[in-house]
Amino acid sequence: MPEYRAPLADFEFLLHDWLNVSEHYAQIGKDDIDADLVNEIITQGARFAESEVAPINQIGDQQGCTLKDGKVTTAEGFPQAYQSYIENGWNAMLGSEEYGGQELPYSVAIPVHEMLVSANVSWRLVCGLTESAVLALEKHGSDELKETYLPNLISGEWTGTMNLTEPQAGSDLSLLTSKAEANDDGSYKISGTKIFISGGDHEWTDNIIHLVLARLPDAPAGVKGISLFLVPKMLPDANGEFTIENDLSVGSIEHKMGLHGCPTCVMNFDGAKGWLIGAPHSGLACMFTMMNDARFQVGLQGTGIAEASYQGALTYAKERLQSRAPQGVQQPDEKADAIIHLPDVRRMLLTQKALTEGSRALGLLYAKQVDIVRFGTEEEQAKAESIVAYLTPITKSFFTDMGQEVSQHGVQIFGGHGYIQEWGMEQLIRDSRITQLYEGTNGIQALDLISRKLVRDGGRMLQNTAALFSDMINAIQNEADKNMALEIQQQWLAGSESLMSGDAFDTASRAYDYMQFCAYSLLAICWLSMKDRAAQTGNDQLASSKAKTCDFYIKRLYPRALMHKAALGDSGEDLAALSLEDF
Amino acid sequence: MPEYRAPLADFEFLLHDWLNVSEHYAQIGKDDIDADLVNEIITQGARFAESEVAPINQIGDQQGCTLKDGKVTTAEGFPQAYQSYIENGWNAMLGSEEYGGQELPYSVAIPVHEMLVSANVSWRLVCGLTESAVLALEKHGSDELKETYLPNLISGEWTGTMNLTEPQAGSDLSLLTSKAEANDDGSYKISGTKIFISGGDHEWTDNIIHLVLARLPDAPAGVKGISLFLVPKMLPDANGEFTIENDLSVGSIEHKMGLHGCPTCVMNFDGAKGWLIGAPHSGLACMFTMMNDARFQVGLQGTGIAEASYQGALTYAKERLQSRAPQGVQQPDEKADAIIHLPDVRRMLLTQKALTEGSRALGLLYAKQVDIVRFGTEEEQAKAESIVAYLTPITKSFFTDMGQEVSQHGVQIFGGHGYIQEWGMEQLIRDSRITQLYEGTNGIQALDLISRKLVRDGGRMLQNTAALFSDMINAIQNEADKNMALEIQQQWLAGSESLMSGDAFDTASRAYDYMQFCAYSLLAICWLSMKDRAAQTGNDQLASSKAKTCDFYIKRLYPRALMHKAALGDSGEDLAALSLEDF
Repeated sequence: MPEYRAPLADFEFLLHDWLNVSEHYAQIGKDDIDADLVNEIITQGARFAESEVAPINQIGDQQGCTLKDGKVTTAEGFPQAYQSYIENGWNAMLGSEEYGGQELPYSVAIPVHEMLVSANVSWRLVCGLTESAVLALEKHGSDELKETYLPNLISGEWTGTMNLTEPQAGSDLSLLTSKAEANDDGSYKISGTKIFISGGDHEWTDNIIHLVLARLPDAPAGVKGISLFLVPKMLPDANGEFTIENDLSVGSIEHKMGLHGCPTCVMNFDGAKGWLIGAPHSGLACMFTMMNDARFQVGLQGTGIAEASYQGALTYAKERLQSRAPQGVQQPDEKADAIIHLPDVRRMLLTQKALTEGSRALGLLYAKQVDIVRFGTEEEQAKAESIVAYLTPITKSFFTDMGQEVSQHGVQIFGGHGYIQEWGMEQLIRDSRITQLYEGTNGIQALDLISRKLVRDGGRMLQNTAALFSDMINAIQNEADKNMALEIQQQWLAGSESLMSGDAFDTASRAYDYMQFCAYSLLAICWLSMKDRAAQTGNDQLASSKAKTCDFYIKRLYPRALMHKAALGDSGEDLAALSLEDF
Repeated sequence: MPEYRAPLADFEFLLHDWLNVSEHYAQIGKDDIDADLVNEIITQGARFAESEVAPINQIGDQQGCTLKDGKVTTAEGFPQAYQSYIENGWNAMLGSEEYGGQELPYSVAIPVHEMLVSANVSWRLVCGLTESAVLALEKHGSDELKETYLPNLISGEWTGTMNLTEPQAGSDLSLLTSKAEANDDGSYKISGTKIFISGGDHEWTDNIIHLVLARLPDAPAGVKGISLFLVPKMLPDANGEFTIENDLSVGSIEHKMGLHGCPTCVMNFDGAKGWLIGAPHSGLACMFTMMNDARFQVGLQGTGIAEASYQGALTYAKERLQSRAPQGVQQPDEKADAIIHLPDVRRMLLTQKALTEGSRALGLLYAKQVDIVRFGTEEEQAKAESIVAYLTPITKSFFTDMGQEVSQHGVQIFGGHGYIQEWGMEQLIRDSRITQLYEGTNGIQALDLISRKLVRDGGRMLQNTAALFSDMINAIQNEADKNMALEIQQQWLAGSESLMSGDAFDTASRAYDYMQFCAYSLLAICWLSMKDRAAQTGNDQLASSKAKTCDFYIKRLYPRALMHKAALGDSGEDLAALSLEDF
């Protein structure tokens, strides 16, 4: 397994030099957070991820989780790492101060989250879902529910889960059939089966708080008849101690391609006691509160896994001696040259590096906007919200596709050894594959982007996002790079605006190409901006690395944007043309 | 696990309508093989693959192989399926008649091979390696070795393996250190450790014939000092019975990402007795005899796995009800429409179909050339050989990359269920991943294509291949399609010819783009030709399916060729620019 070292230098460059977060924190009323504090947090996060979370990643893949006598046990070291995580306050970074949280900016927490994913995505996933549950509860829960559940969820004393999917209801939640019936005491009786429940059970904590989508008896059909319920594994007794087992159980642990360290459960609710979160039939709206965060967090898994794969491949490419480089012998004292000198290996490594660092940059830019949504003025909030809305499906789908591509290159660079489990590289392909599927498949994300965030929105989100990128472009000092960024921006806007008309089928036909076109365009602008900013840091090594990687990106990856743009002019006629028999 | 049904109609269309094999067989002196016989062979092959090999595919993935007391046991049903395979003569299709083979044309055997791969690539791999060993022995073995070993290898009574890779010698065989020392009786004592040996041991047969690369004491350094040896697991006693255990053993079974059903072994040779095949120090030349076949067979694994994934995804897409189609309700009596009506699902299915059927066509076109190499006149042979040489790295690398992409789409169409092992779709990603690595990584293939098959060859192979495609294009009756095919051909030739100069680094930098450019171009021509031919069959359903899939290919997949072509004009300057510290 490649040893993971957090990319602290890149985080520091992005946060301080590229995004100037100190100024930003002052603007959103977080002036107590200075550069030293930020660096201290991410350095401690790096230490924790490297030394406590990464070492159990392969163990989790090998041991998986077991279900015995109705109880789930995770791999060796997983509960201990979680205990350390909550004792050191990592779970409380984002929770509200009122309930014991630290209310840190998202842009401080995201680097730590990325590191945890690089170190061990299975382990991190369970922690991450608690954060989603906290968000939903903070926004929509009654004061009583908040007081009862938030402190322990924020501290991490308890974990949270999301129970959405049912066998017949995946992308289409309107088909869900789990039921909720009112009890006399204001609580509800929840019945139904949920599948793919990450962290559905485990031995890490004494209680697990399930958020469950179900239908009330009088619910209208479709998505407007779904309500959200809080259903704890352990219920409070008369003394307020959580000693009573609720009527819910783990049906089985799913057998998955990867993510073996994460207990993904089939959950059976057999009249389990729960409480309504938000108004009746507003479950989907409550879920939407978490949606941006949950989807971006999945996107971040793509970046984190990509970083892990790049690191592993880079180390190997420097050490593996095989053949002589075509440009001439590089290591005359060795029997062969390291494969990093081979052009095709460099092509793969640079693809990994350019995609990973580009996605990290766009992700932190996104996180800065989330900070404004949370802590900005009302006017700033509205603008930032629309940028976040536009970028969410892009980060979720592109970062995860990118994570898969980068993991594939990582295995390829290892040659046959990449296929052998002991090296740890193939695990990254298997672990990252889920990220393209859950929290809405990437096809669903692309459709969300083009139909809801572009066409139906009439371009408002697009314009706000463009304004943010214009600021970035205007700050570029190198004229040639600035003009190139402007040209890329104009292509992106023109391509987007050309899609405003068209029927629903044509629009859906263009969705995937549009998502990719946007992502490769925005990453190109980020790269040109990073290159420019790096040149001003006085750090020659950084400037050289960013400039050359930027050049590679523009030359070899940005053309993908243009290929996808060319496809946008077409209708979906060719897709509609086939009858079922033609397939 | 999706039930596999062999694509017999497509094979029959390609063999008879598209390639006119009856005429071809008459020309190569195989006029006893008429259309009825071809159809009978592939129909029986389909029955065997569907009913005996496919059902044990998932069992193999789950049970894997075990090593106990030095002996390997494969999954339930694997030895029985092999017994049935050899009893029914499938192993002997290609072997020479002199030693009990059927000497069938390659183009008859290849459809059966593809079906076996679709059904179960782990199981098929072991059989396939015997065929490679037979090829090497037929061409380079002494009469005594041939008489002793060929009959049982051709019948399948024994299996064969290829022992090339060592821990420090993968892509670069010049680094291998296994040793061979002469015994007094003309045999040799072989010592060394080999890794990644598919079928290194199993309980299917009483003997296993290992072909092993090793160095003689007086061997020059590098690849010119490698010799090939035949090293049986069981040696003959004084009576010629194979009762004596040779000094070789299985060190371990590799833990792999997939291909669990195949016993991939670390083999230790501890002074094992073996015999030289071919002249001393000519081991690499002997290996090259098998190279085209072995590499194309790996490419075929890409096609076969792609077909399996497409079938699974198509069945699921027709059955899975989720959401309403954007063009309006399709199944009013159901709660939702089948997802095959969604444009983005169609995009993925058509990508699967167009790549799979296109690769199958190019593969059979290739097989027809191999027939000519084996059975044609001397002049025909030389031309066909050069076409085979040019196309081999393309089929190996493109088909296997394609197999990975198609398997990825298959999982994506299943949504979250695609990640669950029971459905069988994720196994196809894991199983196909090795095909991009073994028999020379796809990067090595791309380098072979551009440097050895294009630049160093001076374009002779290219011109012969172009002539073959010109014949295909000239036969297209639809003028517009013919002109389009001509234009694509001209682009391909112009792109190729532009690469004849350039230093070794630049050439290597362009290798991967060139391989992809060629593959997407040649598939485009195949598709236009297939569309045209299908229109002439009088089979309206076939004509409709091929025409619409061709349109999709030209519109949505051929642009990838142009993107790769654009990259060919560049030097490798951007790749060379980074110092080790810049990564």
